[in-house]
This record gives sequence, structure tokens and C-alpha cells, in this order.
Amino acid sequence: MVSPQSSIGVADVSVDDEFWSPWIERNREVTIEYQYEQLEESGTLENFRRARDGESGGFQGMWFQDSDAYKWLEGASYELAKRDDPDLRERVNEVIDLVAAAQREDGYVNTYFQLVEPEKKWTNLHLMHELYCGGHLIEAAVAHYQATRERSLLDIATGFADHVDDVFGDELDGVPGHEEIELALIRLYHVTGKERYLERAEYFVDLRGHNDRLGWEATHLDEIGGHAYADLPEGRGDDLMDVAGNLFLEDSEYDGSYAQAHEPVREQDTVEGHSVRAMYLLAAVADLVAETGDEALWAATELLWENMTTKQMYITGGIGPEHAHEGFTEDYELPNETAYAETCAAIGSIFWNQRLLEYTGEAKYADLIEETLYNGFLAGVGLDGRQFFYVNPLASSGDHHRKGWFTCACCPPNAARLFASLGAYLYSERDGELYINQYVGSTLSTTVGGVNVDLEQESALPWDGEITLEIEADGTVPINLRIPDWADGATVIVDGVPVSDGNRSSDVERSESSSGPVEYGGTGFVRVERDWGGETIEIRLDQTVELLAAHPDVEADAGRVAVARPPLVYCAEAVDNDRPLHQYAVPEGADASAAHRDDLLDGVTVVETEAAVPDYDGWEKRLYRPVEQTGTEFDRLEFVPYYAWDNREAGAMQVWHRLDRP
Amino acid sequence: MVSPQSSIGVADVSVDDEFWSPWIERNREVTIEYQYEQLEESGTLENFRRARDGESGGFQGMWFQDSDAYKWLEGASYELAKRDDPDLRERVNEVIDLVAAAQREDGYVNTYFQLVEPEKKWTNLHLMHELYCGGHLIEAAVAHYQATRERSLLDIATGFADHVDDVFGDELDGVPGHEEIELALIRLYHVTGKERYLERAEYFVDLRGHNDRLGWEATHLDEIGGHAYADLPEGRGDDLMDVAGNLFLEDSEYDGSYAQAHEPVREQDTVEGHSVRAMYLLAAVADLVAETGDEALWAATELLWENMTTKQMYITGGIGPEHAHEGFTEDYELPNETAYAETCAAIGSIFWNQRLLEYTGEAKYADLIEETLYNGFLAGVGLDGRQFFYVNPLASSGDHHRKGWFTCACCPPNAARLFASLGAYLYSERDGELYINQYVGSTLSTTVGGVNVDLEQESALPWDGEITLEIEADGTVPINLRIPDWADGATVIVDGVPVSDGNRSSDVERSESSSGPVEYGGTGFVRVERDWGGETIEIRLDQTVELLAAHPDVEADAGRVAVARPPLVYCAEAVDNDRPLHQYAVPEGADASAAHRDDLLDGVTVVETEAAVPDYDGWEKRLYRPVEQTGTEFDRLEFVPYYAWDNREAGAMQVWHRLDRP
Repeated sequence: MVSPQSSIGVADVSVDDEFWSPWIERNREVTIEYQYEQLEESGTLENFRRARDGESGGFQGMWFQDSDAYKWLEGASYELAKRDDPDLRERVNEVIDLVAAAQREDGYVNTYFQLVEPEKKWTNLHLMHELYCGGHLIEAAVAHYQATRERSLLDIATGFADHVDDVFGDELDGVPGHEEIELALIRLYHVTGKERYLERAEYFVDLRGHNDRLGWEATHLDEIGGHAYADLPEGRGDDLMDVAGNLFLEDSEYDGSYAQAHEPVREQDTVEGHSVRAMYLLAAVADLVAETGDEALWAATELLWENMTTKQMYITGGIGPEHAHEGFTEDYELPNETAYAETCAAIGSIFWNQRLLEYTGEAKYADLIEETLYNGFLAGVGLDGRQFFYVNPLASSGDHHRKGWFTCACCPPNAARLFASLGAYLYSERDGELYINQYVGSTLSTTVGGVNVDLEQESALPWDGEITLEIEADGTVPINLRIPDWADGATVIVDGVPVSDGNRSSDVERSESSSGPVEYGGTGFVRVERDWGGETIEIRLDQTVELLAAHPDVEADAGRVAVARPPLVYCAEAVDNDRPLHQYAVPEGADASAAHRDDLLDGVTVVETEAAVPDYDGWEKRLYRPVEQTGTEFDRLEFVPYYAWDNREAGAMQVWHRLDRP
Repeated sequence: MVSPQSSIGVADVSVDDEFWSPWIERNREVTIEYQYEQLEESGTLENFRRARDGESGGFQGMWFQDSDAYKWLEGASYELAKRDDPDLRERVNEVIDLVAAAQREDGYVNTYFQLVEPEKKWTNLHLMHELYCGGHLIEAAVAHYQATRERSLLDIATGFADHVDDVFGDELDGVPGHEEIELALIRLYHVTGKERYLERAEYFVDLRGHNDRLGWEATHLDEIGGHAYADLPEGRGDDLMDVAGNLFLEDSEYDGSYAQAHEPVREQDTVEGHSVRAMYLLAAVADLVAETGDEALWAATELLWENMTTKQMYITGGIGPEHAHEGFTEDYELPNETAYAETCAAIGSIFWNQRLLEYTGEAKYADLIEETLYNGFLAGVGLDGRQFFYVNPLASSGDHHRKGWFTCACCPPNAARLFASLGAYLYSERDGELYINQYVGSTLSTTVGGVNVDLEQESALPWDGEITLEIEADGTVPINLRIPDWADGATVIVDGVPVSDGNRSSDVERSESSSGPVEYGGTGFVRVERDWGGETIEIRLDQTVELLAAHPDVEADAGRVAVARPPLVYCAEAVDNDRPLHQYAVPEGADASAAHRDDLLDGVTVVETEAAVPDYDGWEKRLYRPVEQTGTEFDRLEFVPYYAWDNREAGAMQVWHRLDRP
């Protein structure tokens, strides 16, 4: 077992990137700001005030709305880690004070149950999300502590975690319907060093699929808490019943797969159910494996990752095709127009893969993070920073549009905390070596194996594969450069001297996959060891336009190709093309070109290919005729990055185009 | 203006056909028998008994359920016309007696209003179907009178029709929401010679789109009848409200297009709304044109026919793609898996086209009747005669199945009356000439232009294009033989001497299209004039397997081909093919073969083509990869006639297959 990497956190990394910085700034200036206003408008803070004041009733909003406050605290904390902002710090402290005041003496805090059904706490683990909210409280606390070294929020979180640890495994055995507490407890363990949190996380992971508490609840809805929610003036009782309705198989048996509770985690080999829940669970599983080296958990992890990435994932990195249960279905069932592919699920996949990357050091996980960041995740956010997709289809007839984030509950704040912490996904350290996982313009100031390192990265991605690193260090630091699986060729030049491709130079080594049967892309890292004194590393990754096919069992993509210029997946939008999109067929080996257009969509590289289109000759007053009498002519089909779709005139969009196989 | 043809009715034609006779026998033995039992079980006859006895309340079933009794009477009457059946005759008379006893003195008869809301009759023309039911009463009466020359049912019908004629245009102006009375009144005019029925039919056609009665009702639901229906123990008030909900445009304006009342019929140029209603209206319009020579109506008819056949029709002859309003949508919008294509709409199209054929003598209408009979209509009925499709998709993932006809209201009895009267679609007469419109084995004994003709037809269609006619006549009778538009070549041999193709022989003439701008197929009739004394005509129609493409604007069929061996459209079913259907791509110019299999599906000719399928090599543990690394191999794809699908193991089906354009 290799020793896990540690990601280098947001405090040590300052992102300064032509592509990503505008997103991060919009996130700070628009999203986090607006999110704070919404905490007041939605009644979230008022719920805490009422709980503080010992009131009864008057709960407002969704039953898991406390988590909105916690997610905001987490995102805001990442911003505080990067630079002090007195106004933001004051707001953060006010909210923390409020949560502290609302928390019960025993550590319990959940404004819904405190205000509405205090006697029913911990009776509806499946639907009522007390542990889910608590998990977000803990994540916020860890982020806040790491940013400020203040314990104000951390103390609240440990109080809650201690209470959970007291209650569960003792007076009550059960797992939450929505995972989140598990990964949070492990984060809490990492900052506090308290083993009980790690062990409680392990308890929740190990019990899942073994304990029939969720099934009991689902079949005894009358006996559990949550029903009073439907009677609140602001309540939406139907939502709860809809969820409850999803919990059953056709024969009225409880179906635990919605919450990954159909069988023990160690026995699972296909990703199932609600995809955000699955990702949060698996992130915790990866953390546990890193802590415990549990081989059975790791074996299951590898099977689940293989299942997801080779049978249940969109080409954008999006996951979970189905609307009804927001989750996974059958292998290779990846419909395009009806894809769910929730933005939060893409974010959850990034969380999971970052942990797998840290554990294994294998580039394939960083590859998938990059793919998901630039496509399945980024499409979830509009160019104005004010409009969001919950649902990310890969084809649209023109009626799917982003909505103002204030109408959504989970995706906008989840995106906000990812943007705010993007710096934490770029670099990691293991065994005194530095790993460059993502090529995003940034400055890094940290210590690797006891050696101070200052690194400045410039990157022209995703438009151009030119990356430059300038490094100063107190001593010798091996630097591992990820060569993405998509690179059609890579050159590494150290201080003006070409030292690769691959293993050509003595001081460049390509690390090999070390962790079992999974092959994904087959790329790795190039290792450069130097005593750095301001030298530069230039990396040239060749980008080409690719036509990609999907596995033969994917019905939705049969006879179709997707256009990519990695790391970006492209799509065709009606606004750029004269004919209806269904008329274009891209020939195999089509001549393709790419050109940057500063004026378009905040600046994008567009792609164009030749395409066959039907000839209208002979079709007048005919609806059907022998195919040999029909003809085609040649036209051009223009593509824009998938993430940028639906930012102009409404119209059809498609990622998968008919292939004209010669 | 040419003089219209007259179809030769069921009494003069006896169908004896290897393909059709089993369907007709199952229809008589299974469907009509079962339908009678259902009249009792469903409470239909009991409703009439209660009305007869002057009771109040107790109405059972759908509000338009009287029409079930009338449709049964119509179908049973066609059987009585073909051969006497004392048991059936007695049942028919019993039902007629019951209707007679239930009819009010003023001629009104509708058991729903008589039992439930007598004071509300004629207040809800849009939804409550009094005129629709009355139309079916009249059609049954005409069929019964023509079969038996007895006036028992005809007197009831004329009583009702006289009442309608008294009420409408005088105390009330309005048109029915569901057309049917119009064509029925013209049929009644044809047997009675009474002009008032023709004029009242013309009134209903002319008023449609001019009168705001339907819109007034739709916006004054509280003031009209029908609401009491929802309160009946057996009522289904929701159905009514669903229908009412379909009547409005997005801006809450009344949308008459559902009932073809959006504009005057003479101004309509696209088929709109509920497709069965549209077909019944247009059948009446065709009758009116034949009676009056109204040029504006004919001009509209030609535009509507062109719109339907060249922009809004499935390759099966099915029409009306949308479920919500059971009808037409936009030009070229012809989705396959979600196609509605109601069986009754296909039947309605046959009714309309038969009238157009009679009016014009143009073979294109007979071509479309043939296409619809063998495909869009016939698929609606299972091989057991007990299971029916309401909805006829052109692709299925395997979960669409016929249901027992007793659960349906309209399609099974509509299919029953079409099967029972199929003989009436084969032959017609005009100006002393005989027209052979459909090639179905049968004997004909009739008088043409005063000359007695006995004709015996044998036909191997749809499996083989060999047709033989043997004719005896008292004198000279010109016989016009339809050459179907699909024939890839045709030979006509009279008494052993080849006399065509086309105009090669002096006694063979090909009639030319005479009625305006529509081109459909471009075929016509071959004319053979003889003094017949037992001579035979042999017709050889060459059948080939065709790959058909759809118009470039049909998104659902882009890059796809349908396989036909006319007159049959073929489909691929999962049960006959090893791979999932989406994997097959049929090459343009594919080698295709046809072979008859007596053992399959009651005997069908199956078709097989070569097809490209993906090579699985290199796909292990890959979900996406460059298309140029993927390969294909060759396989065979087997097809069965579309009408025969879903008669074996449940599984996927598709009519449109990916095209591998070389």
C-alpha cells in the first residue's frame, strides 16, 4: 500500500487563471453574496433564531434547509482562507453565533425538529436528513477552522458529532437515508485527531445494507417523524410522500438501493440509486480505505468505480440518468435528451475522485476530475453566475433552460463551495514529492517534505495545451506532472531543454498504475527532480478534435459520435447552424478545424467539421421514397463547448451527432 | 366533373381470401360475439331498458356508451347482409326493439341524458356526444336496412334525424365536438332520398368554424350538462375534465382545432386536432362534394389530403402522433416510440379515402386504403382477435402490448365493423364500368351498367402479387384494374394473352389522373374491355423489398430507413434477432431476401437483409473511444410484417432502422 497523498489546501494556493478566475470571481461576488441574502429571505436564519429563543412552530422552508446555512458557511470560509475580508468575516461570525445559540445543550441541532416535532428526532433517518444537515455543519466547521484557526464553529460541530456518537450504536442503530455525515466525520477526525469520529464514520459505512432500520421506517411511515412538515404553512408534504413512494419495489418490498442500502457496501459492485448519495458515501469509503487500508472496501471501490466509469457515465462526466430517483439505472442506459445528470452528482463525483487520487496517486482519477469540472459540472452554471442547471441533458429540443439559483436548494451552494475551493484540487504532496494534478493558472506557496516551494503556474487550457511552471525551492523536490489521457502527444521542457516524451530523459520517469485491475486512459505522471532555483517547466499537450463513439450497448448513442477537443466536450446549438441539427451527419475522419473567438460566450474556441446533409431535391410532396433515390450534400457543422450551451438564444442542442460512416 | 363511382356493397361480394378470411372469421366468431356479451355486461342494454321504463338515474358506463350498441348493430348487420344467421338476426331485432322502446316520442334518444340530466339535453355539444351517438345509430340503421330491407331500425334513425333537423338551425345553432352525425346523415339521405338530411349535414359542415357555440360551452362549463356524470357511481368525471382541459390554448383562449372548429372547413389547409374527428368530418366533406360539386370544399379537401399524406402520416398509414389530444401536431413531427396513431384514426382515414376514391376514381386513394389496411389498421388487432391496440407506435422498447378489447371503448367495435364490411372496399362501378380497387380473393355478383357480371377473384397478396380474375357477363363490360403504386412492374394477361404493360395493347388503357395538383404514386388503372364469357385476367404485380427514407424534415427518421415489401411495411422484433435492435445498421443497397414461413405468425413472408453491427473488440472496460478505432462486422437482420408485431414474446420493435450509407 502506497502512502496517500495530501491535497494542498486553498490557503496555500491562489488561482489566477484566464479561464477559471472569472468563474471564481462571479462565484464570490454574485453567488456567495446572493446566497447570504437568501439565508434571510428563505427563513433559514429565522429558523435558527426561533430555535435559539426556544420557540415552537413557525419553521420555514425545506425540512433540510439548515444545510443551506452550513454550505454558505463552508463556501465563505474558503474565501476567508484565501484572503481576509472583514465584512464577510463578520457575517460568518454572526451566523456561527446564531447556530451556537440554537444548538441544544446535548449538542443536537436541527431547527425543523427543534421547532416542529422535538419528540420525533432521530425517528425518520431515511427522509428527514438530520445527519445530512449535521454533516454539512461539520464540513463548514472544518473549512472555517482551517481558514481561521478559530474554534467557534468547530466546537459546535464537535458538540453535534459527540452527540451523534453517543446516540448511535447505543440507544439507536441505523444509517441516514442521505449520506454526508460519514465523509464529514472523517474530515472532523482529520482536524481534531479524535478517533471516535473516524470510528463512527466507519460504523455508518459498515452498517449500511446490514441494518433494517430504513426498511422499517419506510414501511411504518405513520410511526415516524416528518408528517407534521406537510401541515406547515410553508411545508411541501407531497415531496416527502414522493420520496417515500420511490423507496419501494414493484412488489411493495422496501428497495434500499435508492440509498445504497440494498446490500453491504463491501458486496456492492454496481453504482445504484440516488447518485449524489452514492458519491457522498463513496467519498467516505475512499477516506476510510486511506485510513484503514481495508482491502474488501478497496476491492468494492474499484468495482464500483469501474462500473460507473465504464458503464454508467455520460461523456461529460455526468452521472445518474434518471429523473424519478435522481440516480443510476442500468448499465449503458444513458439517454441524452432525458438525462438527469444532476450538477450535484458531478460535484459528488469530483469529491470521490479527489479522494481516490489522493489515496492512489493515479492520474486516471485526476483525468476524470478534469473531464467532470470542464463539462458535467461547469454546464450547471450559467455564464452570468446567476442561473443554474439542476439537470444536464446531452440533447435538447430547445425547452431546457437554466433557472435562477434562488429556486433551487442544493446545486447552487454546492457549486459555490466547489468554485471557492478549486485551488485545493490542483496540487498534492506524497512522500516529499509534489504532484501537479490540474493545470490551472495559480501560485503555490507551500512546504513539500520540509522544503519550501514557491511555484507559479500559467496555463492556456482549455483552449491551448501550453503550460508553464516556474519553481523556486530551498532544495531538491521531485515534481510529478500529470500527462492527461487525452493528450495526443506531450512534451516537457525543463529550462529550455526538452526532457521527454515519456521516459526519454534520465530525470523523467513515468509512474505506472499500481492499484489493481482498473485501466482508465493509461496515463500517469512524468517525474522531474531538480534543485529548483527559478527554472521553468514548459509542458506542451497536443490538442486535437476527436470524434468519439460510445460502447455498442449504449442505445442512445448508436451510430453517433461526440465531438471533443479535450478536455472539453463540444455540442452543436441551433443558433450556430442553419439547418435543424438532426439533418447533419458527421463523416468518420471528417475534416475539423478549431478557432478561438474572443467575442463569443466570453471567449471560446469553436470547432467546425464538415457534415453531410440531405438534399431536398425530389422531396416535394413526398413523405417517403426509396433511399437510393435520395441524395446528400456537404455543409459545415459548428460546435461550441458543452459547458457554454444555453447562454444565448434558446434552441436545440445535441452532443451526439449522427455518424456518416464511409 | 366526372360522375362518382358507387362502391359495390357487402351483399354482392363474398370475401374468400387466404389472408383476409381468417381475420373476418375471427371477427365474426370472436369479436362480434364478445361485443354482444359486453353490451349486457357493461350495462349498455340496461341503460336502454331503464330509459324505456322511464326510470331516472342508474346510468352505467361511459357517457357515449349508446354508441357501442349501435356499432354492434352495424357490424352485425353487415354479417346479416352476407348470409342469414337466425340467431344473430333475433339478437339484432331484440336490441332494435329496445332502442325503439327507449326513444322518446319526439325522436330524441340518448340514455345518459334521458336517465341523468333530461333537462340538459343539447346543452353540451362539445363533450357529451349526443350527435355522435345519433350518428352511429343512423349508420347502424342504414347498414341494417341495406342488409334486411326491414325498416325497424331505419324508422328509429329517421325519427332521431328528423328531431335533430327540427332542433338545429332553429332553436339552436351549433356543431358537435365529435363529428359523425354529418357522414351519417348523408348515408341516411342515400337510402331515404330525403334532401333534408343532406342539407342538415351540409349545415353542420358549413357552420363549423363559423359558430362560437363550442367556445361558449368551453368557457361556461358550469352552465352546461355533463357534470352530473362525474357523480355517478360508475362515472369518470375526470375524463370529462381532461377533455375540457385540452380545449384551451396557453393564453386561456378556446382552441377549436381539437374539434376542427378553429376556422371554416373551406379555409382549412392543414389537418388539425383529434384525428378520428378530423377523418369523420372529412368523410362527410367528401360525400358533400360528390353531391354538390362544391369547388371550395374540394379545393380544401385536396389541400388537407396533401397535408396529411405528405407531412403528417406514418409510413403505415397511421395518423395523429400525439397522445394528449389523440391527434395531429406539426408538419413532419412523427415520433416513433411515442406515436399515438390510434387504430380508429386509421379506420377513419380508410372511410375518408374510400369516399375520395368513389368521387374521383383515382387509384392513389385506393393505394392509401391498401397501405392503411395492411399496416396502420391491421396492427391494431392481435392474431387471436381478442387483443387490440388503441395506440400504434412504430418503435417499442418492449413494454407496449395489446389489451383485451373489453377494456377499450371505440377501437374494437370500429375494427369489427370494418372487417365485417371489407367486401364493400373491393369493387366499384362508374358509368357502366367495373373498377377493381383492392385485390382480395372474393366472388362478385352484381349488375354493371345493366349487365349482369359474375366475377371470381383469387389473390395471393400480400405475400405474392399473383391475382386471377374469372369473369362471366351478359355483355360487354369494361373492367379497370388498379395497378398499385408500389408495383415494381405489372403484367396483365387476358385469357392467356399478355396485353400490357401500360398502353401496349389496343384494348388496354391507363386512366390518367384528372383531379388537380396532387401527385401520389402516379399510378392508375388499366382498362380491359371485353364481352366476358368466362375469360380470365391474370395480373402479375412484381414485389421487391424496398428501403424507404423519410423526408429530411422528419427528425425521428433522420439517417434511418424503413423496410417494406409492399403492400406490407416490415419491422424488426427482438425475438427474431440476437443483438439489441439499436446495433443493426442497414446498408444502402443491402442484399435483401424474402421467404414464406407457414409456421410463423399464422404464416408470413419474412424479410432478411444484411446489416452492419458493431465489433466489440477493444471495448472492454471502455465506454467512449475514438470512432476510427472502432469497427463493424456484418450480420443479418430479420423482419416480420408490422401488423404481426407483439404476437409473440415481449420485446423491442422498430420500423425505422439506422442506415449505413456507404
